[in-house]
Order: sequence, then structure tokens, then C-alpha cells
Amino acid sequence: MYSSKLRIFSGSSNPVLAEKIAEQLGLPLGKITLSRFKSGEVYVHYEETIRNCDVFLVQSLSHPINDFFVELLIMIDAAKRASARTVNIVLPYYGYARQERKAAPREPISAKMVADVLTTVGATRIVTIDLHAPAIQGFFNIPVDHLTALDLISDYLRAKNIRNPVIVSPDAGRASTAEKLANQLDSPFAIMIKKRPAHNESVITHVIGEVEGYTPIIIEDMIDTGTTIVNVVEGLKERGSEDVYVCATHPLFSGNALQKLDHPSIREVVVTDSILLPNDRSDRFKVLSVAPMLAEATRIITEGGSISTLFKTAGV
Amino acid sequence: MYSSKLRIFSGSSNPVLAEKIAEQLGLPLGKITLSRFKSGEVYVHYEETIRNCDVFLVQSLSHPINDFFVELLIMIDAAKRASARTVNIVLPYYGYARQERKAAPREPISAKMVADVLTTVGATRIVTIDLHAPAIQGFFNIPVDHLTALDLISDYLRAKNIRNPVIVSPDAGRASTAEKLANQLDSPFAIMIKKRPAHNESVITHVIGEVEGYTPIIIEDMIDTGTTIVNVVEGLKERGSEDVYVCATHPLFSGNALQKLDHPSIREVVVTDSILLPNDRSDRFKVLSVAPMLAEATRIITEGGSISTLFKTAGV
Amino acid sequence: MYSSKLRIFSGSSNPVLAEKIAEQLGLPLGKITLSRFKSGEVYVHYEETIRNCDVFLVQSLSHPINDFFVELLIMIDAAKRASARTVNIVLPYYGYARQERKAAPREPISAKMVADVLTTVGATRIVTIDLHAPAIQGFFNIPVDHLTALDLISDYLRAKNIRNPVIVSPDAGRASTAEKLANQLDSPFAIMIKKRPAHNESVITHVIGEVEGYTPIIIEDMIDTGTTIVNVVEGLKERGSEDVYVCATHPLFSGNALQKLDHPSIREVVVTDSILLPNDRSDRFKVLSVAPMLAEATRIITEGGSISTLFKTAGV
Amino acid sequence: MYSSKLRIFSGSSNPVLAEKIAEQLGLPLGKITLSRFKSGEVYVHYEETIRNCDVFLVQSLSHPINDFFVELLIMIDAAKRASARTVNIVLPYYGYARQERKAAPREPISAKMVADVLTTVGATRIVTIDLHAPAIQGFFNIPVDHLTALDLISDYLRAKNIRNPVIVSPDAGRASTAEKLANQLDSPFAIMIKKRPAHNESVITHVIGEVEGYTPIIIEDMIDTGTTIVNVVEGLKERGSEDVYVCATHPLFSGNALQKLDHPSIREVVVTDSILLPNDRSDRFKVLSVAPMLAEATRIITEGGSISTLFKTAGV
Amino acid sequence: MYSSKLRIFSGSSNPVLAEKIAEQLGLPLGKITLSRFKSGEVYVHYEETIRNCDVFLVQSLSHPINDFFVELLIMIDAAKRASARTVNIVLPYYGYARQERKAAPREPISAKMVADVLTTVGATRIVTIDLHAPAIQGFFNIPVDHLTALDLISDYLRAKNIRNPVIVSPDAGRASTAEKLANQLDSPFAIMIKKRPAHNESVITHVIGEVEGYTPIIIEDMIDTGTTIVNVVEGLKERGSEDVYVCATHPLFSGNALQKLDHPSIREVVVTDSILLPNDRSDRFKVLSVAPMLAEATRIITEGGSISTLFKTAGV
Amino acid sequence: MYSSKLRIFSGSSNPVLAEKIAEQLGLPLGKITLSRFKSGEVYVHYEETIRNCDVFLVQSLSHPINDFFVELLIMIDAAKRASARTVNIVLPYYGYARQERKAAPREPISAKMVADVLTTVGATRIVTIDLHAPAIQGFFNIPVDHLTALDLISDYLRAKNIRNPVIVSPDAGRASTAEKLANQLDSPFAIMIKKRPAHNESVITHVIGEVEGYTPIIIEDMIDTGTTIVNVVEGLKERGSEDVYVCATHPLFSGNALQKLDHPSIREVVVTDSILLPNDRSDRFKVLSVAPMLAEATRIITEGGSISTLFKTAGV
Repeated sequence: MYSSKLRIFSGSSNPVLAEKIAEQLGLPLGKITLSRFKSGEVYVHYEETIRNCDVFLVQSLSHPINDFFVELLIMIDAAKRASARTVNIVLPYYGYARQERKAAPREPISAKMVADVLTTVGATRIVTIDLHAPAIQGFFNIPVDHLTALDLISDYLRAKNIRNPVIVSPDAGRASTAEKLANQLDSPFAIMIKKRPAHNESVITHVIGEVEGYTPIIIEDMIDTGTTIVNVVEGLKERGSEDVYVCATHPLFSGNALQKLDHPSIREVVVTDSILLPNDRSDRFKVLSVAPMLAEATRIITEGGSISTLFKTAGV
Repeated sequence: MYSSKLRIFSGSSNPVLAEKIAEQLGLPLGKITLSRFKSGEVYVHYEETIRNCDVFLVQSLSHPINDFFVELLIMIDAAKRASARTVNIVLPYYGYARQERKAAPREPISAKMVADVLTTVGATRIVTIDLHAPAIQGFFNIPVDHLTALDLISDYLRAKNIRNPVIVSPDAGRASTAEKLANQLDSPFAIMIKKRPAHNESVITHVIGEVEGYTPIIIEDMIDTGTTIVNVVEGLKERGSEDVYVCATHPLFSGNALQKLDHPSIREVVVTDSILLPNDRSDRFKVLSVAPMLAEATRIITEGGSISTLFKTAGV
Repeated sequence: MYSSKLRIFSGSSNPVLAEKIAEQLGLPLGKITLSRFKSGEVYVHYEETIRNCDVFLVQSLSHPINDFFVELLIMIDAAKRASARTVNIVLPYYGYARQERKAAPREPISAKMVADVLTTVGATRIVTIDLHAPAIQGFFNIPVDHLTALDLISDYLRAKNIRNPVIVSPDAGRASTAEKLANQLDSPFAIMIKKRPAHNESVITHVIGEVEGYTPIIIEDMIDTGTTIVNVVEGLKERGSEDVYVCATHPLFSGNALQKLDHPSIREVVVTDSILLPNDRSDRFKVLSVAPMLAEATRIITEGGSISTLFKTAGV
Repeated sequence: MYSSKLRIFSGSSNPVLAEKIAEQLGLPLGKITLSRFKSGEVYVHYEETIRNCDVFLVQSLSHPINDFFVELLIMIDAAKRASARTVNIVLPYYGYARQERKAAPREPISAKMVADVLTTVGATRIVTIDLHAPAIQGFFNIPVDHLTALDLISDYLRAKNIRNPVIVSPDAGRASTAEKLANQLDSPFAIMIKKRPAHNESVITHVIGEVEGYTPIIIEDMIDTGTTIVNVVEGLKERGSEDVYVCATHPLFSGNALQKLDHPSIREVVVTDSILLPNDRSDRFKVLSVAPMLAEATRIITEGGSISTLFKTAGV
Repeated sequence: MYSSKLRIFSGSSNPVLAEKIAEQLGLPLGKITLSRFKSGEVYVHYEETIRNCDVFLVQSLSHPINDFFVELLIMIDAAKRASARTVNIVLPYYGYARQERKAAPREPISAKMVADVLTTVGATRIVTIDLHAPAIQGFFNIPVDHLTALDLISDYLRAKNIRNPVIVSPDAGRASTAEKLANQLDSPFAIMIKKRPAHNESVITHVIGEVEGYTPIIIEDMIDTGTTIVNVVEGLKERGSEDVYVCATHPLFSGNALQKLDHPSIREVVVTDSILLPNDRSDRFKVLSVAPMLAEATRIITEGGSISTLFKTAGV
Repeated sequence: MYSSKLRIFSGSSNPVLAEKIAEQLGLPLGKITLSRFKSGEVYVHYEETIRNCDVFLVQSLSHPINDFFVELLIMIDAAKRASARTVNIVLPYYGYARQERKAAPREPISAKMVADVLTTVGATRIVTIDLHAPAIQGFFNIPVDHLTALDLISDYLRAKNIRNPVIVSPDAGRASTAEKLANQLDSPFAIMIKKRPAHNESVITHVIGEVEGYTPIIIEDMIDTGTTIVNVVEGLKERGSEDVYVCATHPLFSGNALQKLDHPSIREVVVTDSILLPNDRSDRFKVLSVAPMLAEATRIITEGGSISTLFKTAGV
């Protein structure tokens, strides 16, 4: 059914998702050796010929990000040298995306470094989901298929018939994502205003918009340490809103985020499997799968057609 | 005082600003012929040697943007071929910046096209002000000095001692700029929520945050046709707020914006000279000059030092 | 009949020609939105999927050249990002071709700028006609299919059985084109010698070769303002030659060229539709269509074969 | 004494060496923030202006190699964007150097990936020591200053007046290094022949050359897990040679190499500080410093002169 | 049987081999004009269309190397401009491979220059045999199919049932090739130790390993002037070994090598046809053909499959 | 007097000219080893440090062109790797310049190949004289200083007070050069019309313009085999013009051109030393030196100033 030239390989970061994508396409995952020497060096070896094939490499730039990133670079290099026709990178989660501009002088733009390096090494296409900043698409001159999980999330929420929902943006900078979800669910929305005394810290000062008496649905592109989210949840509680739904595409869940988010004021944490989660997590966590969407994108990329049929909205 | 190698040339878009920058530096503007053949083709000729010089080209990508853009490309090409040591582009206003990502499939990312083309033709550095999206810095691999006029604007407003000010973001997507100005002026802020039935159209549906009884200060990075701003102003009036201050770095003022903004509910329109304005404009328009900031940046670039000393905040 | 992957889109410069090419190929023109914001910025949107397609973009770099050029760049950028397999540029007229070398120090080589920029943005092939200087082919490292309309013109002239023709080169620099046409028509040829006191001006000083008693056929690659041609016509008249045929591939016709060339000593002005002409022109103008040749080239490019079968000679 | 433009910064891998280099040059180390977010992402911030400076970044690609490599990429990106004049990479140890060719089909050439990526991100020069394969120099098109510690090692050994030394190459592939050291010490040499049943494993089968009755000096460019070396030492012991000197430029010392090499048949392990070693190591380990050599190279690079004055031989 | 798009053309260096490869594939050699003007300039013209074809150019960089190299560059340039789909370079012998690193300061890395230049001009793949240093693969970012003739040579030798063979490496630097052949033939091996008082000169000082009473098989990747080999042969003779087999992939045979190698102590010189040899050579020379291997590689490259099936070992 | 950083090295093609340039600048020629191995491979070694220097390499691409070209590439590669600050190529004669466009399908554009390859290998500037086609400047994106020897030639001719001169273009394609010289000497000019039955052959058919009774001065950019020139001279003789002056910048003099041009109807052959001529030539040959012009250009390039001061006209 699919072109015999399509081959899907998984990096080490999210083999469960890669397996699901391959299954959806009715293909076996390609055989590849991925190992680490005692020196920490990554070793990659494709165990089957990929000459003239359209190779898809599935890798999320999640923790330990630098190992997964370098492993991906080496996978690309090996694929290019093994005469793959195209080397398509499926990056369900694009790490370093939050360093997409210089917020202070003499800072890097690490998200651009990632883009340049992937291209240099031999990537010929990127497929990714809910970039932290959509302008990151423009960091590439190879085609980028930018998908969104927002439809997945809003469909899920709609089916729950939440009473009196209000969409809450955890900060002013993400207000447009909240606006989009509010439009989809036909709900009002509110913004939490906070100060950032230091990196990774924040203090809620006030809320713009009504939240009291509503069921808050916090929407984010990713959840990292969970500290911000828990602050927002507690800020909402102080303002009389409980039973919060927390939604995000990418469950980064650094440090003890899984514990922090297992919070009595949170009803549910709705995320996707763009990043592999441990199985021993609380029932509070609901994981929606991006595999069908990524499989369909892969099919369209190799057979032709329009990716835009995959979603109604333009992303987080 | 300045290196004898520094040469500043003006494109056709904003010679008044270029002249001011040169004056601040105590230098004459470089002599250059810029003409147009009847066929519409641009002709450029440097009338003085620039061999081994650090050349600064001042051009805003304002209307007619394509002519100014191609003129700039040809100026860069000629400078490179004339053995300039560096070709520094001072882009007070970076046109096409609003097309910085694909909002729909099969759209261009024109802001990236601008970046790639400038670099290909020979630009070695960009100096610009208040990019519509800061991630555009990452579209370049040459150094970008990204300045902001927000301090200029907030200093001006502070000096006016406006009674009970509220910073108003005209839409959710620009909320973080409003938040920054609110922090600087220690004011509350509000967001106008609107629908976009079509390109360049919008309808205000409601406001998040308090505006009644406050003096609204609308902040934007640029004002294009003025339609959105006038909608916001009228939306505010309906909600009991008048005497609006409208602030923006870049006065694009397309079509009859100058007429539209000469509106009875607007107290003042505060902009900069990043784009050349006609002289026959209403007194309602207050123009702050970015020339001292650009001159100082030019000096630091050629002599060394830190551009970050030029501003307190990270931009619109 | 043609590969289902071939898609032809027209820019704004010459939709009539694009339509004719598509017709010749039995294909509809692709659907594309090309618009301009009030700010002058071009907006492009392909209205149908072009993923994995061989896209042909038809655009002449005629007046207003900078708008058409930037529109083309944006069309290319959007096609590349929409995953077109190849992006083939059909440039019936290559603007800025007369700036193909530095005639004076500190001038640009704008024709190279055009080439570099097209390639950077994503063009993978150029199809063009009668370049002002054939070395412009070498400005590209992507394949260039360089066609000529000289056969079209000489076939047309031969059919007219002109009495006692002499091919006239309007200046020494174009003598080899005149020599080619003279060879094709088995006629003598002559050269007008002139001085250029300034850009776009010229004064005929004398003629090399016999013209008296002959019917002069002036041949040029392009006619811009028409001033040079009218000078030559009048110079010929003074030397006893009237009823002049004026031939050129590209009818740039800047300013009031159409009026100037409607001259009593000119029998006919023979040009092609490489550039779109207004309909309300004098009967003196004869327009030959390059559409069949461009359609055939398009077919060969996608299906294979040799472009050299399309013409007997190596161009103007 | 040194150009005021020279700035030396240390990555996280070997700050002790960087400090020594700076000290030798009479300069303070530059101030830089290097941190890690909980997500594993590296954050870099230069705490002092480097505009127009010649920046030297000292980083060894030792364990954890991927973290140090990505940190280096981000340091380079930030330096480039902060307008450093040149970005010189001092890589005392070049990791991934052993993957410098495809030993099997569908393998990467990771050493080339490292080279391409460093260059893409903005490195303008490499300074390194005893590359595993000297052809890696050719992986770069930026200048590479390839130093050697072989003189350091041979000077040290010569001063010890070892009785009846024989230089031993642990395998056939490294024989030319052993030949060089043998020439310097005017000694015979021998080669250990082994089989490699699997990656990182080896079995000594026999010895070519005389070893009995000699004091063996094993020479390698690097020691990784130490397994090969201990095998060789034991192979020598079986053949009647004890009190082995083990020499190598790069003490990778992966896994429990420090324990393994603290072996009764080894008299001394002579290495350099190209890689940072723990302080709690056996007295058997002798560490020679490459700091004076790297400092002198840095001086020559910025002031001019010939690096070749720094060593007599062409490297391991 | 083969894709109708495959076209094989021969440069001037080894038309006999190219003819054999084409024959093996059941294809005629493509028609091409290769000529030289009196000025020494090469002229190339493909006499048949290659539009959209997979073009294979067969050229060995043998003597006169610069003429063959520039001819190859011009063949590539013409193929690229003639719209070949891919331009595959079959380099049976890669000249300048011995300058693959800087052995002294201010030397070139000519092997990298060759790689960069081939890629720039338009090569999209390299097929080559027994590179002098395998790391040269990493000089390219296009795919390199690196074949080996070692199996050909060892099969040939095995069939001869040579009594008591010992594999001899003519110097320490090539010991690992000797080790490989020794493993294949299950023989011992030895290394000749020499001094190099000057370029292209060498003096054998001693031998590591047993040779007396054995039949020596000298193995090299290439034989240039033959001086080294004859030195080794005479060194072996002095140590009681005669009837030497001399094996090498590439018979460069510069100067009077053919005469020198027609030496009474040499039983046979076993080489391949990677470089064209004159017909009037002594019977002592045995030439094995690499044509079947190159033909099979060509087939796999165009049809898919694994090149690794072509050989058991990883090369000289 | 000159920057201590300027170093001039000569390739093998024209050391006499290089020596003269160095002399004019008061500098010694840099020490460099240029040799050839028996295999035909070029070896290059700079015998003095060039770190941070502005290196000028003098090489004419004359016969044997491919050897001189590859030698130049290797000189550039070595200079780049030896950390030269800039690598300036002085190409008094740019070989392959006549292949600057595709005259037939499936031909190369070898002049572009030369340009691309020089740039790739590391050239940072080109200085050249009287390019066969001025558009070749546009083949480069590095600065090209294009000088002309036309002033040298016209000054020489003017001083001779030739009676009744007529400038003769040997074909229509070079008419504009003849026009330029005619303007400088205030003389009439004429064009020889010929057919080209094959490459390097031509038959004069007639003359446009008056030649009888005049002293013809033939002007060309280069003289290759001399056949065309001798044809023209004989064509002029048949038309009653003798005592011809033959002028050209580049004396390629392939084959037996020196003998052919020692022709009784030729009064003088006026050329430059852009290409090294043998000493045993007839007195008929007058060689003007381009060394002062190249020396002055070198001075301006390193010290600043305008090259345009060096000549009145824009070249052959």
C-alpha cells in the first residue's frame, strides 16, 4: 500500500511512539543499532539497506536532550552516507525551542543552532508539533510540516462537557494560544500576570479576566518543571477556582514534575505522547496519542496530498 | 574621533533619518547615486571609494517596499564588489516581518526570504529596531543588533504624568509588549479580544481587564492602515474610555492612515522616525527620533563595547 | 498526457502568456492568490497542493520590475516550503540583464544579484529567452535552458520577401546578433556608430557598411524607451534608407515607447509576447508568440529530451 | 603585552586547563555563565562584551561528551551572535575522532559530523592535539592548528633513562606512532597483533618484534577503557616483559580505567591534562601539562608567527 | 534490464575500463566529445541528451593527473548544466590521496581540495576503490561508495597455493592493510622499517617479524615509482627471502616503474586495471579487473540494494 | 612602506612578471617550494610563515593550463590552511575565459567552473586583466579588480604617430573593443566578416568599413594560435592594406603562433607580459609590461584607495 521505499527508524527517545506510527502505516520499524560506548560516544548502524529510500527518523529532543540530539545528528549522517534519498526528521518535541531569540545580549539562539545543525548534517525535511514559537519554521530552508495537537486536546475537552469553562493563559506571552482554544470551545479566557524574579521562577500578581465560578482550563505548549503551572493553579484557587484542567502538548516533566502535578486542585493533566512518559504515573494524567496524526503526515509526505487536511487550527 | 574607515550611505527610503545619524556621528553622509531607469530598474553607484571601509547602509523597508528592498540589495551588491570590508545594514523598519511563519499551508515565510537574500547578497550585519517577532533575529546567521524604542516611548509617556493610565494591547498576540510597558510605567493592562473575519479586518468582541475610568495607552510595534487601532479606540470609547494615547515604534501609515488616526478620541499618536512621515500631518502626531540610538549603535559596532547599554528592556 | 505532477502558475506580470503556455500543454493554470497589502507587501498563497510536484512559475521581470521580482521570490519561497519537488522559473524576459558587469568602479552587477537571489530562495531551474548577454547563463549553478526567438523572427521576415534587405546593428556591441540574422537571411549587414554622452542617450555619428538603397532590418534583443531605435531609424533615413523593419525579442517599451515607435519611417515593429503589451497599440506592431516554444521546453524538461531541437541558432 | 582583544573562555569540561592557559598568557579567564535547566538544556551567557574580540573557547570532548559538545555549539553560536571577530576552538581532545571513516556500510562518520557542525555554527579556527587520525584536519576548511604532545612525552621518558626500552604499538594500525617515538628515543619497536571479536574487545595473538628482556613503552594517542592496554601489558608479561610504561596523550579513562591501569605490571602511566582527571588517583599516573603549548599557540595565532616552532615531530 | 536513464561516459584516462563496465551492464558507452585546444584547454560536449539521466563518469586521476582532473571537472560542469538528474563519479583511482593531511606546516591537503572541488562543480556521488586513507571518505558530504580490490587480490593469491607465505608491509604506516591480508590468507606478517631522508626516498633499516624461509607477499594500496618496492624486495633478498609477490590495487607506475619492477627477485606483480597500463609490459605483471565490481556497484546505486554484498573486507 | 603583512608568491607560470611586481613594490618574492612528483602530482610548501598575512598569488592560466590551474588551487588551499588573512589571486591571464557561455547544448561553462573552484578552495579576491567577456566578473561573489591594458596599448600606438590608422576588429563579436580603441585614437574602424566552418577555423568573407589606403591596427583581447590574425592580415592585404599592427593584451601564442605572426605584412605585434614569452622571438614582437599596473593595484588593495585611478577606459 505504501511505497516500498519508506523506512521508519526510531531514535532512543521515544520508541513507543515510533512503534505506534509504524503500526499505523502497516510497516515494521526499521532495524538499527543504537549504542553508547563507555566514553559516552554514540554509535549508530543501520542494519538494513536504505539506499534510495525515504527515511523517517523519529526522535524527541527530550531529556537527556543533548544525548538524544547528538544521536539524531549521527543517525542523519549515517543515513545520508548510506545513500538515503531523503532524510525526514520527525521531531514530535523540538527541544531548545524556548531559546528562539536573544532575550539578553550575548545569549545564543539555540533553537536556530538546532535548525542549522540538522540541515548541515543532512536532514531534508522536518515534521514537528506545536513549536514553542511558530517562527522557528523560518529557521529552516528545508520544508517543515508543522502539525498541532490542539484539535486533539479540544476534541477531548469538548467530549467532557466541562461546566462553565474558562481558558486560562499562564502568562501574557501565551495569550494567543488560549485565545485559539477559547474560540474552539466557545469559552471566555483569562490571563495570569506574573513577575519573573529569576529564570524558571515566577510569582502570580493578578489575573486579567473573570475566573471565579468558572472551571479553569490552563493551556500551554509544554510543561517543564510544573512549577509555573502549580503556581497558576494555586493562584486560581485563591481566586475561587478549583478542579483545574491542565493541558499541554509536550509533557517535558523535568525534575519531580509528575509529583508536583499530582495536585489536589488539578482535576486532570491532559498531554500527548510526543514525549515518552513513565508508566507509573497517577491516574490524573491523560495521554492523547499523536501517532495517527504523524503516521498520516508521513503517508502524505511520501504519497502527496495536503497536510492541512490534518487539522483545523494553526497550532498552539 | 571615529575610525576613518566608517562610511554611512542612505538608500531612498529615509534620507532624513540617515542624515541625522551621520550628524550625530559628526560624519558627512557618503556620496552615492541612486536612480531609476524608465524601465523601473534601479541603478546604484558609490561616488567615493569604500575599499576596506566599514559601510553602513540606512534603509527602511517601508512603502514602496519592493523598490526599497531591491535598491538595498543592489546597494549591498555594489558595496561588496567595491571591496568594502563590512556591509552593515541599518534597517530601522524591517518590512515583511509580519510574514514570519506559515499561518496557513502553502504560504511563504517572507521575513525569512528577506533575511536569506540580504545575507546572500553580502550583508555582514543587521541593525534593526523592534522586530514584529523577535525570533526573526534567528533567521540570520550574521550578527543582528536588535534595538528597541520602548524606552524612548515610556520615557516620553512618563514625563506626561498621564492620570490613571492603563496599557491596552490591541490583541492577545501582542499582550507581552503591553505587559512590558505596563511594568515600566507601573500600570495595569488590558487586552482587546477580536475576531478576524478576513485579512486586515477585525471586530472587537470584548475586553479582558479593566478600562473604564482609565486613560488607555495602546501599544503596538507598528501601525499599518490604522483600521485596527481605530477599532480599538472606538471599542474603548464604547466602554467609557477616551483620550486615548496610541503608541507604536513604526508609523507605516498605509493608505489614509494619517487621516483615520486624526481621530477625536485619540489624544496623541506617539511614533518614531524609523519610517519617514510627510510633514503635512496633524499636531496629534508626536515623532520621537531613533537617530541618537542608531548613531550610538554604529559607534559601538565599529569601536567595540556593548549595545545592551543602549536600552533597559528587551523590546516591543 | 503530461505527468500529473506538472503544475504551472502565473505571476502578475504576464498572465496572458502563462495561460497560452498552459493551454498548449493541455493543462489548466494552477490556482494561486497573489495580492498586495496596503503597505505594498506582496502576499502569495497556493490554492492547491503542490507537494512533490514539478512547479513552473511564469514571470517576466518587466515594469514594475521590483514588484514582479519580489513577488517571484515570494512565490518561490512558498513553493519550496510547500514541498514542491522542483521549482522551475520561466523568465521570458530577464530584467536587470543589462547590468551584467561593472562598466565603472563601484557599480553593482545586478544581473548576478538576480541570479544569486533566485537560487538562494529556492529556484531549481531557469528557462529564459535571448539573454542580453549569454554569459548570464554562467551566473547560475542550476540548469538554465536558454531559448531564442531569433528563428521566430527570421521565419517571419523570410515569409515577407523583403526586397534588398540589410541587417542593421544599432551599435557595435550588438554586431554579432546582426551577423547571425544576416547569416540566416543571407543578407549583408551594417553597424551604426554612436557616442553615448550620458546614460540612455546616444548620438549616431556614422555607419559602417552599405545601407543606401537597402531595406534596413534593425535587430536588437530588447527595446526599452525606443529612443535609440528612433535615432537609428532617423540616421538611416538621412542616409537614404526608409521603410525600416525594427525587430526585437523583448518589447520593454518603457515610457512612451509605443508612441515613439509609431514612426512614419518604420514599416513594422516585430516583437514577441515575452512581455505583456497593451491592446490599444498601433497596427505597426507585430507580436509573435513564444508560448509554443516555452510549452515545448516545459514538456521536454519534465519528460526528457533535448531542448536544442527547439531552435536552429544560438540566440540573440 | 597581548592584544587587548583576546578573550579566553572555558567550557565545563576542563576549566583547570583553561585556567592554566589563561595564566600562562597573563590574562584572566573570561566571565561566562554556563548552566543547565532541569530539562537538560544548556544555557550560555557571556558576562562581558566580546564585540570585535578574538575569542578562544577551551573545551575537551570528553565524558559526558554529548553535553560538552552541545555546550560548545551553544557557546559558539552565542559568540558569533555577540559579534566576536573570530571564534577559535581549543579542543585539547577531539571526541568522536575514532569514527573518522566508515568501517562498515551504513555507519556514520561522526568525526566529520563534529567538524561540519562546528563550522556551521560559527567556529573560525580549531586548535587541537594528537588527532586520532591526522586526516581529520582535512575535514575542516577553516584553519586547524594540529599540535602534538609527543615531544612532551619523549622528553619526559628520555629524562628517566629507561634501561633497554622497546616501543610497543598496541596494534598494527598505530604502528607509525610507535615508529615515531622509537625514532625519537632511538629504540627498537614491536607490534602487538590481536583479533577483535567484537567492538571494544580484543585478544592478543602474537607479537611482531623483540620484547623479551626489554622495558616496554606502550604508546597510544588515547586510553579509553584501559582494557586493550591491560591486555597488552599482560601479553607482554607472558612474553617476559614487565615494568611497562604506558603513554598516551589523552586520558579518556572511561568506566573503571583508573582502577584497571593501577596494575602491578605497569610502572607508570604517562598522560597529559588534555582531559581533566580526578585528583584521587594512584601515584602511578604522571600528568604532563599541555597548557604552555596551548598558550603559546594562542599567542602565535593572535600575534603571528609559526606554530611549527612548538614541536619537532608531526604528532601521534 | 537497467533503467533507461542510466548513462555511462568515459573520460580520457581509462576508456578500456569504462568500456568493460558498460559491457558488463549491457549498455553502450555514452557518446561524448573530449578534445584539447592548442592552448591546452579541454573541450567537452555530450553528444546525446542526458536530461534527467543518472550519469556515471569514469575517470582515474592517473598521469597526467591535472589534465584528467580538470577534464573531469569540465565533464561534471557540462553534465550538471545539461540537466542530468545525478552526476556520479567513478574514480577507480583517487589521485592526490597521499596528501590527505598536513605532514608539515604550510602544506596543502590536496586530497580535500579534490573532494571540495568535485562537490562544488556538481558531483552528487563518488564511487572509488581502496583510498590511500579511508578517512578521505569523510572529506565528502555526498555519498561515497568505497570499494576494495583486496578480495580480488586475496582470491587470486589463495588460488595459487603459495608455499609458506608471509605478508609484508613495506612500512609501519601500512601495517593494518598487511594485517587484513594476513587474516584473509591466515598467514603471518612482517613490517619493513625504514628511514625517509627525503621525499620519495627511503632506506630499509630492519624488519619486524620473521621473513627468512617464507615467500613474501608485499601488499600496498598503490605502486608509484616502484623505488620503495624494489628497496623492500632487495631488503627481503638480503634477509633470505626471494620470489616475492608484489600486490597493489593501483598501478601508478610513474617514471620507469614498469622496468624497475621487472626485477628478477619478483615472481609476480599483481595489480588491477584501476589505472590503464600499456600493453607492452612484461609477463610478470598480472592485471585483475575491477570492472565487474564497478558495474555491479553502478547497478546497485541505480536500482537499490547493498554495496556491502560486493566485498568481505573493509579495504586496503 | 608597505604593510609588513603583504606577501607575494609566484606560481610556475610567470615568475618573471611576479618578480617585477614584487620589485615595483620594493618587496622580495615570498619563498615557496613548487614541485612535481613523478606521478604528475603538484606539491606546494610555503617556506615562510604567512599567518595573518595578505597573500598575493601570481599565476597566469596559460599553457600548460591545467597544470598551472591545479597548482594554483593547491597554493590557495595551502595558504588558507596556513592561516593567511586574505588570499588574493593575481590572474594576469584568465584561462578558459572563452568558454563563458553555452554556445551549444550540453557544453560546459568552463569559465564559471574556474570561478567557482577558485572561490571554493579559498580565494578571497581576484585581480585580472582584460577578461575575454567582462560578464565573467559576475561569475564571482568575491571582489574582482578588473584592469585593462588598453591604455598601455593606445599610449604606445599614439606615440608612434601611425599615418592614417584604421582600427580593425577581426570579427563582429569584438567590435566594441575596436570601437573603444578607435575612440581613444580618434580613428575610424572596420570589421572583418567571416564564417566559422569549424572550431578554431575561419574564412574572411568581406569587410564592413573602409580599409584601403589606411594602416590597419587589429585589436584583440588575446592571440591564440594566430591563425585568425593571419587570415585577417591576408584579407586586409587583398584589400590593399599592409603594414598591419597587431595588438592584443594576452599573447597566448599556442602551437607555432610565434612563427606564423612573424609575417611580412605585419609591422609589429604589440602584446603584454601577462603571459610569459620565450626570449628567442622575432624583433617584430613588442612586449609592454603590466607589472607597474599590477603592483599599483596590489598597493591600493592593501592600503585602500581607488583602482579606477589606474586606467581611463573600461577594458578590452
